[in-house]
Amino acid sequence: MPPPIEQAWPAICLVRPQMGENIGAVARVMLNFGLVSLRLVEPRDRWPNPKAQMVASGADRVLDGARVEWRLEDALADATLVIAATARPRDMEKPVWGAREAAANVCAAIDAGERPVILFGAEATGMTSDEVSRADAIVTLPVNPGFASLNLANAVAVLAFALGEARQDTTRPAWFQDSQSPPATQAEIDGLMNHFETELDIGRFYHPPEKAPLMRQNLRNIFLKARLTEQEVRTMRGAVKALTVGRGGRKKDRPARESEDENET
Amino acid sequence: MPPPIEQAWPAICLVRPQMGENIGAVARVMLNFGLVSLRLVEPRDRWPNPKAQMVASGADRVLDGARVEWRLEDALADATLVIAATARPRDMEKPVWGAREAAANVCAAIDAGERPVILFGAEATGMTSDEVSRADAIVTLPVNPGFASLNLANAVAVLAFALGEARQDTTRPAWFQDSQSPPATQAEIDGLMNHFETELDIGRFYHPPEKAPLMRQNLRNIFLKARLTEQEVRTMRGAVKALTVGRGGRKKDRPARESEDENET
Repeated sequence: MPPPIEQAWPAICLVRPQMGENIGAVARVMLNFGLVSLRLVEPRDRWPNPKAQMVASGADRVLDGARVEWRLEDALADATLVIAATARPRDMEKPVWGAREAAANVCAAIDAGERPVILFGAEATGMTSDEVSRADAIVTLPVNPGFASLNLANAVAVLAFALGEARQDTTRPAWFQDSQSPPATQAEIDGLMNHFETELDIGRFYHPPEKAPLMRQNLRNIFLKARLTEQEVRTMRGAVKALTVGRGGRKKDRPARESEDENET
Repeated sequence: MPPPIEQAWPAICLVRPQMGENIGAVARVMLNFGLVSLRLVEPRDRWPNPKAQMVASGADRVLDGARVEWRLEDALADATLVIAATARPRDMEKPVWGAREAAANVCAAIDAGERPVILFGAEATGMTSDEVSRADAIVTLPVNPGFASLNLANAVAVLAFALGEARQDTTRPAWFQDSQSPPATQAEIDGLMNHFETELDIGRFYHPPEKAPLMRQNLRNIFLKARLTEQEVRTMRGAVKALTVGRGGRKKDRPARESEDENET
């Protein structure tokens, strides 16, 4: 079995990590399996963190190169494939994979020039549904239902190992399909979502208000499931524009459409 | 994917573990993946160890049930299949498996009623060649050659995960062959080895003396590779006896065979 080559992708992204020791342990096991790109979203403690360095046992390179962001969307802006590691079942329309399947899809994506990121939640609380809703797919490990809470570094270890195995396996999975046109990044999908939502707000789509977060998640998920390309994002934005300002001889300076309801569902 | 059922086999055996925190982390990840049998050989610190309990995060059951032994051979006495997890290549005539292959063989052995044990070495020093020589096979993980030292619990995590996957995979590996007769335990093989070695000593087999440890390892390995059954151990012991005291009309009270050399190689 040839040794794994150190590789920039996938990035491992820790969402609101708490203990520096756990960040260090993650860095160590990443480098053990040849992964070097670490992202931290809203770490609890000041960064750099000496406790992380102590536990990293020499994987300083991974810690030094870690990117710290305060918003998940910034950490994912350049990602073209996002996978959320979560034990809890979520009521979402997303593929749910085992580690091997996730690893195979990530490797296929890398082969196609994509930039996959794997998300891991905070130690105690995991990820919110809103955070998970940013993922293209969920990866879940076959844990004991009576004792399911994995240590963060152990969870990363299993995924990193599975990636090492998948790299050596040339059979590719069915889910991932390489597209002709470059895949959309999460930033591009965010741009589309923001555009869409602004118009939907005007059209009073988000009603009743308490359902708005879930409606937003479901909508985002439709675009993620579609695995939009850059071109398709542009097409969609053009479509949204056509549905609003540009259509049917409307005037650009026409006031907001308070009296119209054709964009409601 | 059905959740894993907690199961008594394989046992995880830590050889000379140092930090209580690591023992606790191992117990936690074992229970995460449904493994409950922990064995400790010569732990550095007093047992029970409060640091282990703290890190186990509720896997007290695994720690409370841990068997502590002072000699590896006692920890392996009831084992019928022993696999040593080691990163360093050893110049031994033993099968070397990846995690998936090892897990498949362990599961096949359990299905056949065997009692497999997986050995993990001490944090800093790993296992001695003599310790590894007790294994039927070696399992090694595809780590970064530039940064190969895995945290103990992370190594156990990967193996425990691979076992969970293998349990759900009904295709069985080529190496493991179920036998008609019950497999020999390591205690039975130790008995045969002791008998054999006593007679070989008398026959001045171990010459020159500095090569004796290696010759012993090689010899033990022959019996391990053969995957002897209980019956075959008895047969071998009968054979050794026949080659020494019992053969060709010899008298039982005949003195030691100082002048004979037909048992030398």
